[in-house]
Amino acid sequence: MASNAGAPLKSYYERHIFFCLNERKNGEECCAQHRAQEGFDRCKMQIKAAGLAGPGQVRVNKAGCLDRCAAGPVAVVYPEAVWYTYVDDHDIDEIVESHLKNGKVVARLLIPASLGR
Amino acid sequence: MASNAGAPLKSYYERHIFFCLNERKNGEECCAQHRAQEGFDRCKMQIKAAGLAGPGQVRVNKAGCLDRCAAGPVAVVYPEAVWYTYVDDHDIDEIVESHLKNGKVVARLLIPASLGR
Repeated sequence: MASNAGAPLKSYYERHIFFCLNERKNGEECCAQHRAQEGFDRCKMQIKAAGLAGPGQVRVNKAGCLDRCAAGPVAVVYPEAVWYTYVDDHDIDEIVESHLKNGKVVARLLIPASLGR
Repeated sequence: MASNAGAPLKSYYERHIFFCLNERKNGEECCAQHRAQEGFDRCKMQIKAAGLAGPGQVRVNKAGCLDRCAAGPVAVVYPEAVWYTYVDDHDIDEIVESHLKNGKVVARLLIPASLGR
């Protein structure tokens, strides 16, 4: 990474997960058609219930299109830049428990590098 | 960072900037009242015009509330976890030119660590 942008900063949130909640009005496929809102709600609820929400801990965030629609529904965890797809509550719970709480990536839910828009 | 989550991964986007576009319906202060949409649009347009949009480069993303409202309007650049506030087009252009294009943090626009919700 060029210049000083890669300097070791303490991230305001230890982990910041963004869920694509994009909804296409023209009927095209979008994350909103694939339980994205439910996934977001579940994740937010679990993190709050665990007392992990807030600065220095975890933020569960709404986002617009993340432009990796071929893998949707998608979410990305920063600063690690780890991308997930998910199907149901079980997947969300595993991301919460393994990654967001304990820092261990959930390999089975990773998006293949080749999948983009 | 615990376990394998901090392993060096190549980020799908070299830099992923999220703009809070949150709009509060109850009349409370929110980024949407402070030119957030204009800032997002300007940033997206500049990155596209520079040919820097896409995988391996830059993604300019809409986001919901980032919960650092005291510093609003706000945007965050990952994976560096660098947080900015901005006022006008000039600020956006400096973030684009200095940080998003050249990896150099714009110190004058950084959000103080103490500013949160």
